[in-house]
Amino acid sequence: MSTARAWAMDGPEEPFHPTTITRREVGPTEVAFDIKYAGICHSDIHTARSGWGPAKYPIVPGHEIAGVVREVGTDVTKFAVGDRVGVGCLVDACGTCEQCRCGREQFCKRAVWTYNSIGVDGEVTKGGYSTSITVEQDFVCRIPDALGLDVAAPLLCAGITTYSPLKKWGAGPGKRVAIVGMGGLGHVAVQIAAAMGAEVSVISQTRSKEADGRRFGASNYIAVSEDGWIKGHVGEFDLVLSTVAADEDITQLVRTVAFGGAFIDVGMPETASKLNLRTLCSTGASVNASLIGGIAETQEMLDFCAEHGVAAQVEVIPASEITAAYDRVVKSAVRYRYVIDASTI
Amino acid sequence: MSTARAWAMDGPEEPFHPTTITRREVGPTEVAFDIKYAGICHSDIHTARSGWGPAKYPIVPGHEIAGVVREVGTDVTKFAVGDRVGVGCLVDACGTCEQCRCGREQFCKRAVWTYNSIGVDGEVTKGGYSTSITVEQDFVCRIPDALGLDVAAPLLCAGITTYSPLKKWGAGPGKRVAIVGMGGLGHVAVQIAAAMGAEVSVISQTRSKEADGRRFGASNYIAVSEDGWIKGHVGEFDLVLSTVAADEDITQLVRTVAFGGAFIDVGMPETASKLNLRTLCSTGASVNASLIGGIAETQEMLDFCAEHGVAAQVEVIPASEITAAYDRVVKSAVRYRYVIDASTI
Repeated sequence: MSTARAWAMDGPEEPFHPTTITRREVGPTEVAFDIKYAGICHSDIHTARSGWGPAKYPIVPGHEIAGVVREVGTDVTKFAVGDRVGVGCLVDACGTCEQCRCGREQFCKRAVWTYNSIGVDGEVTKGGYSTSITVEQDFVCRIPDALGLDVAAPLLCAGITTYSPLKKWGAGPGKRVAIVGMGGLGHVAVQIAAAMGAEVSVISQTRSKEADGRRFGASNYIAVSEDGWIKGHVGEFDLVLSTVAADEDITQLVRTVAFGGAFIDVGMPETASKLNLRTLCSTGASVNASLIGGIAETQEMLDFCAEHGVAAQVEVIPASEITAAYDRVVKSAVRYRYVIDASTI
Repeated sequence: MSTARAWAMDGPEEPFHPTTITRREVGPTEVAFDIKYAGICHSDIHTARSGWGPAKYPIVPGHEIAGVVREVGTDVTKFAVGDRVGVGCLVDACGTCEQCRCGREQFCKRAVWTYNSIGVDGEVTKGGYSTSITVEQDFVCRIPDALGLDVAAPLLCAGITTYSPLKKWGAGPGKRVAIVGMGGLGHVAVQIAAAMGAEVSVISQTRSKEADGRRFGASNYIAVSEDGWIKGHVGEFDLVLSTVAADEDITQLVRTVAFGGAFIDVGMPETASKLNLRTLCSTGASVNASLIGGIAETQEMLDFCAEHGVAAQVEVIPASEITAAYDRVVKSAVRYRYVIDASTI
């Protein structure tokens, strides 16, 4: 057992404070690594503030983790001390069920989430807002040299969450893809969809991020705050990927889907959204959601991003600013992802 | 031009009254037939009472029409005088667009609906609550001898509306199918899904229709008014077909869909439904809707029903009872489809 510094929350409305946590001894197939950067994901806020249900306090969030291997177990074959690695939302799964065998560990009924879950040691898992972590090697990814650890960290959630559905639903040459919302997930999604060869549009509240959107690879930009915005966009997109975490009526967005196309949510609003089902009747579209991705696919995504120059645009902050950063994320005031410098933890 | 007797409504809250309408001369490729029976579909009520938007009054609804050919145009090759025929929701389409070429005339942008639409003669189309109708031969189906015209009439909408998605989403041996709501559409859907070889469950408000449901082919019956009904049914069904016209929160129903399965709405609620998108995340399910079916598929459905002994269970009523029947349909008090005897019109 070792100790690590961390920042924790003690209740849904409490600020973060520094603390010390324990990390288990490195098992035979486990890897311990020094965390260098941890992204702040909107999921962290939903979870830490109990928006998705009561959290296990004290909570140490963080599932966008990048660092350097410090120690490996006796049977570890995949990593060596000094390797640049990352961990996303998952740190364990059964490995034997159909979902695990198909590389969809995120759907395993025994999946262990990186924080706020019960780990293999029986302890509540604690995430990346800390100085080190110990993880089974099968749930650790390699971060390509072309990616800085700070800009790679958010890819472990924001990257795979958008890469997986874009790939599954066929984003590529000849496909018209709309990314709804250009925050932490959306700004990566625009880059990935463009790198896949799709024609990318952004559907955002206002035009305040238009220049950034075009820089990320979008060729069209739509602002839903403008009256009549939907005119000319009904049935336009083969694929509409919504990264918006706010509850809303998605009917108008679904109307932009082309016949037989797909609307896919990855924003995971806390409460029910509204949808006029008759819209699906007339468009032949489907409404879907997607949940991060499997571990092999996460590695594939990191390699894809390295090859195509895709990375998160980050604001690196000290740990003391986490609470303020949360409020800014909720207000969509971040450009585009806060990443905690673990040396300040 | 000829005249026909009909029953019409003059406003969203008016009762039906008898009237006389005109039917155009039979064109070269058209068929005129004497209507024998017309089903009362919940869509008629949504439309005639302006629930789906302002109707064109006076309105003569009816798109579940069965009758006998009285006259054929000079170039008609498909039908002869005396043939038993039916017409559903569509009476025309462009015939040349991609949707028409793929047999999905219901999605043609120039599709003409059987009533409350603008027909090829420039007049507002008038439906089956009348004694005769003139229709382009390509939009007329043959009713197999094995099906009575009274029990066949509802198949022209209720049958194809449920057959098409059940076939598209693979209802068949080894598949677990749930039919939500056992009204006009649902009671046909149960029979069709069972005839396709699927294991069929009914999800209904109460158990009042359970004996009927099992007689129609269901092997399981679930009543959502019973506390904890969802226990044991989460992730159970490969396919959940909702025939419910009421607005509601579909989240719990979507939770019954198996991983990667489909929820399909054919109930077309008037306003937006609620759905917690996170449910789709955890189930990998999709939410879809389906809109009747194409003409060739409608013929296929009629042949399938004749072969498998599937028919609507009807209550034949005189035209004078249409208004009262509407109120009973809204209250789910019909067992299971009202059919107007056109000889009383």
